[in-house]
Amino acid sequence: MCDSHSGVILISHWNVIMLAGLNFATLLLSVAVCQGSQYKDINSETVSVDQGSTYGSLWPLPQQVSLSEVSFKLSSSSFRVVDAEGSSAGPSCNILQNAYRRYYEYLFGNARKTGHFKRKAARSELSELQVSITSGDSDCDGYPGATSDESYELTVDQPYAILKAPKVWGALRGLETFSQLVYEDEYGAKSINSSKIVDFPRFQHRGILLDTSRHFLPIKVILANLEAMAMNKFNVFHWHIVDDPSFPYLSRTFPQLSQMGAYHPYTHVYTPGDVKMIIEFARLRGIRVVPEFDTPGHTQSWGKGQKDLLTPCYSGSTPSGTFGPVNPILNTTYDFMNLLFKEISEVFPDAYVHLGGDEVDFNCWKSNPDIQKWMDEHGLGKDYAKLESFYIQKLLGIVAATKKGSMIWQEVFDNGVKLPADAVVNVWMGSGLQGEMFNVTAAGFTTILSAPWYLDYISYGQDWQRYYKAEPLDFKGSDAQNKLVIGGEACLWGEFVDSTNLTPRLWPRASAVGERLWSAKDVTDINDAYSRLSKHRCRMVERGIQAQSLFSSFCRHEYKGI
Amino acid sequence: MCDSHSGVILISHWNVIMLAGLNFATLLLSVAVCQGSQYKDINSETVSVDQGSTYGSLWPLPQQVSLSEVSFKLSSSSFRVVDAEGSSAGPSCNILQNAYRRYYEYLFGNARKTGHFKRKAARSELSELQVSITSGDSDCDGYPGATSDESYELTVDQPYAILKAPKVWGALRGLETFSQLVYEDEYGAKSINSSKIVDFPRFQHRGILLDTSRHFLPIKVILANLEAMAMNKFNVFHWHIVDDPSFPYLSRTFPQLSQMGAYHPYTHVYTPGDVKMIIEFARLRGIRVVPEFDTPGHTQSWGKGQKDLLTPCYSGSTPSGTFGPVNPILNTTYDFMNLLFKEISEVFPDAYVHLGGDEVDFNCWKSNPDIQKWMDEHGLGKDYAKLESFYIQKLLGIVAATKKGSMIWQEVFDNGVKLPADAVVNVWMGSGLQGEMFNVTAAGFTTILSAPWYLDYISYGQDWQRYYKAEPLDFKGSDAQNKLVIGGEACLWGEFVDSTNLTPRLWPRASAVGERLWSAKDVTDINDAYSRLSKHRCRMVERGIQAQSLFSSFCRHEYKGI
Repeated sequence: MCDSHSGVILISHWNVIMLAGLNFATLLLSVAVCQGSQYKDINSETVSVDQGSTYGSLWPLPQQVSLSEVSFKLSSSSFRVVDAEGSSAGPSCNILQNAYRRYYEYLFGNARKTGHFKRKAARSELSELQVSITSGDSDCDGYPGATSDESYELTVDQPYAILKAPKVWGALRGLETFSQLVYEDEYGAKSINSSKIVDFPRFQHRGILLDTSRHFLPIKVILANLEAMAMNKFNVFHWHIVDDPSFPYLSRTFPQLSQMGAYHPYTHVYTPGDVKMIIEFARLRGIRVVPEFDTPGHTQSWGKGQKDLLTPCYSGSTPSGTFGPVNPILNTTYDFMNLLFKEISEVFPDAYVHLGGDEVDFNCWKSNPDIQKWMDEHGLGKDYAKLESFYIQKLLGIVAATKKGSMIWQEVFDNGVKLPADAVVNVWMGSGLQGEMFNVTAAGFTTILSAPWYLDYISYGQDWQRYYKAEPLDFKGSDAQNKLVIGGEACLWGEFVDSTNLTPRLWPRASAVGERLWSAKDVTDINDAYSRLSKHRCRMVERGIQAQSLFSSFCRHEYKGI
Repeated sequence: MCDSHSGVILISHWNVIMLAGLNFATLLLSVAVCQGSQYKDINSETVSVDQGSTYGSLWPLPQQVSLSEVSFKLSSSSFRVVDAEGSSAGPSCNILQNAYRRYYEYLFGNARKTGHFKRKAARSELSELQVSITSGDSDCDGYPGATSDESYELTVDQPYAILKAPKVWGALRGLETFSQLVYEDEYGAKSINSSKIVDFPRFQHRGILLDTSRHFLPIKVILANLEAMAMNKFNVFHWHIVDDPSFPYLSRTFPQLSQMGAYHPYTHVYTPGDVKMIIEFARLRGIRVVPEFDTPGHTQSWGKGQKDLLTPCYSGSTPSGTFGPVNPILNTTYDFMNLLFKEISEVFPDAYVHLGGDEVDFNCWKSNPDIQKWMDEHGLGKDYAKLESFYIQKLLGIVAATKKGSMIWQEVFDNGVKLPADAVVNVWMGSGLQGEMFNVTAAGFTTILSAPWYLDYISYGQDWQRYYKAEPLDFKGSDAQNKLVIGGEACLWGEFVDSTNLTPRLWPRASAVGERLWSAKDVTDINDAYSRLSKHRCRMVERGIQAQSLFSSFCRHEYKGI
C-alpha cells in the first residue's frame, strides 16, 4: 500500500552515487519511494540485519528528505548557529539560545575554540546554520500547546544552512534534525551532506507517560528523559504524578497529602520548585507537561493526609478500617477538589489536566450503607457506574471553572459521562480497541491512543518492532473521525521501573512510537528502521542517555556512565 | 515437606520479643522452622507484600541463624575488623585486608575517624570483629577452586564478634553476612543484634554467565557485577568471552583473532592486562573465572583472523564464500587449538576451561565435498554428530594435556563423546531437563544446571519468583546422583544487554538463583524471600550497584548514578 501523502523523496543511496563536486541543485533526482511494500518477509521480531539506510541516522524520519552526495565539513572553531536576519526571535529568546548551545555541545562536545571565528570559510565548509522564525510571534516566551506549530524547513547548502520555522517549536525540531544529519567521515571530520528537508508531525500529540507514584523518580531521571524525548521529537510529558502507592506532589494548599502520603515527606516529594524546574526544562525543549491527578480510584495515598476524602469500606455493618475510592457523596470532597484543582491549574501552565477516571473498584462503595442510602435517595439504585459518573461530572465542572481542558481515560467516556466538547479521551484498553476508537471519534471527541504502547510490558526480543507496526488509524473511521485522533502516548507504568532501569527500558523502545507518531504513515520499512534506529540509539548513548541496544552490536562509544 | 537438613533455627521475631538487657545465651530458644510449608497460596508471580522477615535483610539465607533481640551499636570511629590471635592469615593477607576495607566502607562509607581508636567501648557497643582462619593454610595467596571451603561461623556478642573460617573464602562469605546483619536504628545508629550463624553453601558451584561477544562489556561493567556477585555469595564468573559476533579476547599467540574479529581492535578488546585485572578482582572476592572458548560452532568471529580455521560452505560444487563451524578434518586446526588452549591455560589460573560444544549447525559440513570425502574415508558415513564428536574428542585431549579440566555444554555428552572422568556437563536445555539430569549423573559425571536460569529471557512481572522456585535436584536421582549436581549458573546471554542495561537486568533477578544455590533446600517461603530480597536490593543500590526494583516500593537512598 503506497499512501499518497507519503512525500518521502529520495535522491540517491547515501554511499553509492558519487556526486562530490557537482552542483546539488542540478542533480536533484526526485524519486518517490513507497517504503511500505519493501521487506514484507520480515514479520518476526527476532533478528534484523543492518543493511544500511539511505537516510543515515535520521529518527524519526522527516516528511520529505532530499539528500545529495555533496558534503561539507563543520569546524568546531568556526561553525555557528545564529539567528537569521529578519527572524522574529532574537538573542533574548531563551528557547533558541539554549538550543543553540545544546546542539553545539551535541555536535562538538566541549571542544575548545581555537580558530578565528570570522575567518573565511574553506571551500566545502559549512560555517553557519541560520535560524529564522518566520511568523510575527515566535512563541519564544510562551509554552508549547495542543496546537503549536512544529513544522520547519531545513536547507543545507553553501555558504550556509538555513532553518526556517513559523515558531520556535519547529526550530527546535529542525535543530535536532540538523544535528542528526551531521556525521563523521572516515578521518573523524564532522561532515554534513547538502540536503533539503521539509518536515512536520503527522500527529500533534506525541507523549510519554511516566509514573512517579509506584516508584519515586529523582529529578535527574525525569530531566534525562525529557532530553531523550526531545531527541525523538516527543512533545508531551504525561506526568502520572500520584496514585495508590504514594503521593509525591507537594501541594501548597494541602501539604499534608505528601507529608502523609509520599514514600518519604522530604526525600521522595516534588516541591513547587522541582515542578517549576521540570516544566521550564520541558518548555525549553518544546515539551508540554500534562499532569495527571487520577480520581476517584487510584487514590489510596491521598487518604492518608486528607480525612474523609476516601470512602470507608464496610465489613457487614461495621467499617472494616480500609478505604475505597474518593467518597462521592460528601460536599467536603468537592470543596477539597475545588481547591486542589485550582492550585493545579496555577502550578501547571498547560491548557489540559488529566483527570484519570480509570479502573474504579465498586466493592467498597457497595459495602458502605451511607453510599447505598444516598444512591437510593438520588435514584441511582445499584448503578455504581452512574455514581462514578456523578462524581466525574462534578469534577469536570470544577476543572472547567479553572479554564483548563480535561483529558480522561476511556472508562469515563464508556460510562456515558457528558463530556465537554474539548475533552480528550485517552484510549488504553487493548481489547475492543478498534471499536472504542470508532465510538469515541464518532461521538466527536478527540482521542489519544495509548493501548498499543504499554512499554512496561516487556518481553524477550525486539519488541520495538511491535510498537513500530502499530497504526493509530487502524480502525474504520471516516476522514473526519481520523482527524480526531490527535496522537498517542508511550506509557511506562511504574510497578517495575525506578531510577535504576527506567531509561534503558524506555529508550529506544519509545523511539519506535516516536517515529510512528511523527513520520508519514507509509514509513513502515522495518529493516530501514532498524538501521536508522541502531545509529540513533548510539547517538543517544553518546549524548549521555542510557538507551539500550536493539540487538547484538556495538557503539563506537559505549555507555560509560555505569 | 520439612527437609531434615533444613537447620534454620529461629529465636524470635526480629521486632517483637523484647530481650534488650538480658543475656543472650540464657534466652536462646531454638525453634526449628520449616519454611517450605508456609504461604502455599502464593503461586502467582504478580504481587508480593512485604510482611517483614524474621531474618531482616539476610541474603542468601545462611544455613543456621540464631538471632537475639539484644543489640549493640557500632561506632565508625572505633569499630575495627582485625585478624584474631592465632589466625593463620595475618596482615600480609591481601584478600582479607582488602575485604576489611571493603566492608568497613560498605558499613560506614568514608566516615572520618574522629574518636580515640583504643578508647574503652561503651556498654552495649560492639568494638571489634575478630577474623580467624582456622586451618594451617589460609589459601590467602591462592585462587578459589572447585572444592574450596567456603564455610564459616559467626558469633556476634560482647565484647567482640568472632568470625571463624577454615579458609579465607569462608571469611569472605562471613564478612558479607556480618555486614548484612548491621542495620540502622530509628536514630540512624549502626546496630547489630547478638547472633550466631553457622553457614556453608548447599552447592559448591554458583555461577553467573556473562557474554562479552554479542555486546562488548566495558571492564567497569564486569567489575561492578563481580562486586554484586560477592554480595550474593556467587563464586564462579563463567566468562563466555567470544562467540560468533565478535572476538574481544586479545590473544598473545594469535593477536589477529581480535584484530580482525573484535568489534574494534583497540576499544572493544580485553588485553592481557585487562584479563589479569579481572581475575585478580574476582580472586579477592573468592570468585573463580572460568573462560569459555566455545567451538566448533559459534566461531564466525574466529574465522576472520585465522585462515582455514572454519569450514568453507559450498553452494552446489563451488564455495559460497560463507563459512561454517571449525574445520575438523585439517591438521592445522588442531595445531591452532593446541597453541591457543596452551595460552588459555596459562592466562586463566582456574582448573577448568569451558569448551562450549553447543548448537553446531551441520549444514555447512554437509555441503562441503572435502568433509564428505573425509567422512567416507574414516567410516563416519553421514553421521555429522560423530564428526563433531571426533573434533571434541581431540580438543578434550588437547585441553587435558594442559592439565585443565573441561566443562562442556550438554550436547557433547548427548552425542556420546567419551568424556574424561572429571568433565563437568553444563545442562542448558529446558526440554527434557529431568531426563538429562538423570542421564548425566547416572553416567557418573558432575553437572551444572543452567536451564531454569536463562535471565536473558525477560517477561513482565516478578519473574525472580520463578527462578527462586527452580530446584536443581528436581529429578529422580539417587543420593549418589544428587551429589554429582555441583551447582548451577544464571546466564545472561548478550543479544539484548550491554553496558546500558546489563546490571539492572541481572540484579536482583540473579539473587534469586544465588539463594537457591547457597541456602538450605527448604528455604522456599516466597513472602519471606520477598521481604529480605527487597531490602537486599536496596542495600545493593546503596553500595552503588544499579539493581532494579522487585515491585512498587522505594529505597531510602534511591539510585543516583544516572
